[in-house]
Amino acid sequence: MSPSPDFPLAISLGDPAGIGPEVIAKCWDNRSALNLPPFVAIGDGRSFDAVWDGPIEVIDDPREVDSAFDVGLPLINLTAAQTDTPGHPSVAGAHCSLDALELAVGLARSGSVAAVVTGPVAKEQLYGIGFQHPGQTEFVAERCGISPGNVAMMLAGPSLRTVPVTTHLPLANVAEKLTSALIESRGRAALRGLQRNFGIAVPRLAVSGLNPHAGEGGALGRQEIDIIEPAIAALAAEGWIVTGPHPADTMFHPRARANYDAALCMYHDQALIPVKALHFEEAVNITVGLPIVRTAPDHGTAFDIAGQDKADPRPMAAAIRMAAECAALRTEAA
Amino acid sequence: MSPSPDFPLAISLGDPAGIGPEVIAKCWDNRSALNLPPFVAIGDGRSFDAVWDGPIEVIDDPREVDSAFDVGLPLINLTAAQTDTPGHPSVAGAHCSLDALELAVGLARSGSVAAVVTGPVAKEQLYGIGFQHPGQTEFVAERCGISPGNVAMMLAGPSLRTVPVTTHLPLANVAEKLTSALIESRGRAALRGLQRNFGIAVPRLAVSGLNPHAGEGGALGRQEIDIIEPAIAALAAEGWIVTGPHPADTMFHPRARANYDAALCMYHDQALIPVKALHFEEAVNITVGLPIVRTAPDHGTAFDIAGQDKADPRPMAAAIRMAAECAALRTEAA
Repeated sequence: MSPSPDFPLAISLGDPAGIGPEVIAKCWDNRSALNLPPFVAIGDGRSFDAVWDGPIEVIDDPREVDSAFDVGLPLINLTAAQTDTPGHPSVAGAHCSLDALELAVGLARSGSVAAVVTGPVAKEQLYGIGFQHPGQTEFVAERCGISPGNVAMMLAGPSLRTVPVTTHLPLANVAEKLTSALIESRGRAALRGLQRNFGIAVPRLAVSGLNPHAGEGGALGRQEIDIIEPAIAALAAEGWIVTGPHPADTMFHPRARANYDAALCMYHDQALIPVKALHFEEAVNITVGLPIVRTAPDHGTAFDIAGQDKADPRPMAAAIRMAAECAALRTEAA
Repeated sequence: MSPSPDFPLAISLGDPAGIGPEVIAKCWDNRSALNLPPFVAIGDGRSFDAVWDGPIEVIDDPREVDSAFDVGLPLINLTAAQTDTPGHPSVAGAHCSLDALELAVGLARSGSVAAVVTGPVAKEQLYGIGFQHPGQTEFVAERCGISPGNVAMMLAGPSLRTVPVTTHLPLANVAEKLTSALIESRGRAALRGLQRNFGIAVPRLAVSGLNPHAGEGGALGRQEIDIIEPAIAALAAEGWIVTGPHPADTMFHPRARANYDAALCMYHDQALIPVKALHFEEAVNITVGLPIVRTAPDHGTAFDIAGQDKADPRPMAAAIRMAAECAALRTEAA
């Protein structure tokens, strides 16, 4: 099995009408085959009714997980104002998904659980109830007292980890949002994350260019020269091993990947295309820069297939395993 | 062996100071192991002197290739004004690389060779001698009487083919260069290329979005709605099977790739990152939309390693094999 943390993991169910409950239940069903450590789900137990008929063990304290885990799926129950039908999200479900996230993060902050795995939420629904953050990542950062600029989303698969500097922006706005300061802060979060979450004492970061062929010396854009190279120099001056800017199209083949522990990419698709092309069922979203371990499967609520027994539990299983591995490394280091 | 065309292939050496001569010589050396059909190299025979001591069979007519190919590397000799040292390109070498390209295309146009494979050229050197085209692709198109807008660069590996709509532009300029008309013409070239070069009677084209998550219904950019969707509708109205716009990050995993024969991507790295991540040594650049077959290895002159016996011949071998396969399909269809 994966290195096991001393405490169980907490998994927030995400939106009750999404595929979160289904993939978590399937993970518990296949906990041995999928090589999963003990975990407790947090959310409305009724979310499982439409998608699963396995046993649930309602508990109040994560310390009960160890004894409960072989009997049923351990659950800290939060009762939503109504029960949602899979595929049909509601305001009540959004509130419940946020309460579950908040409780999971609180348990991790207090040391009662070893790590948090978050199920997929519906951003539109959350915005509808006044959620002020771009996504769960920024919410978790705030609850941990960290500025969103100092955390980063890392996509991690078995042979490639990438971190996007900018995320959910129109492509036409990427160039104007890119600053040396932002590249440096994301780079630092990535490097520290490699140390703390993956136990890499001297991590190596490869930084991509923004433009084709990394700008070809300025002929295809000047951001490499004006913005990215100074950021690399600043990180190197702090003692980090940082290379680039590399042409993005030649960074991701096996020989190139052997030269770095993570790739810092300038925008969403540059970071996500290679990880998902290589590791679609195993890519895990891990937030680096946090005092706690937080992972998530790299998929959304998938309302279109919710409740149809079609959801693949492997991404959630990969997120659970990675959370356990990272938490175990932190426990050893502490 | 690959399906063999009725006539040999012509390979232009590319820049004499680049790795072209070395990888072509290595292909001849390993012609059986690499499963290569007969070919004739075109360029200055002295380019081989510094990198190879194998036998050369100088010929005048491609009909001599069949008898010469087992004796030595068949060569149509073009004498440059001077001999270059590997890694040190010159004006004379640029002229010679262009002459070789011109002759290779002429032989293919006249039916004397079955296809053209082009070795890597140095664009800066070519611009220095008055070359007016962005690259070899546009030069070949002009020599074939085709508008550059109606051909497209396809990157093809064993399990993925992609075509970029825009190519060598700064990323910040991609959005403003993207038009429905350009997407349609590249899409048509891609679809016809799948028919003519790959023998796919009813080709399926998947079109990517420009923005993260294909714009999320306009929240992350409107190009999908305003530009890409109308282009897809126009191609579909012509009877083609075209889907999208798809979020680029979830288009390239095995299950998604099974749904299309080529992906039409909006910009350089979006198209090249997945092909090179999956198929670095086997990705071939094939120009679609031409009356002749033209392929090229997907690498440059690599002046930094030229003459050091470090160049990998596998991309050139893949380009030769694909040229032969495409030519054989055209011969069958004719």
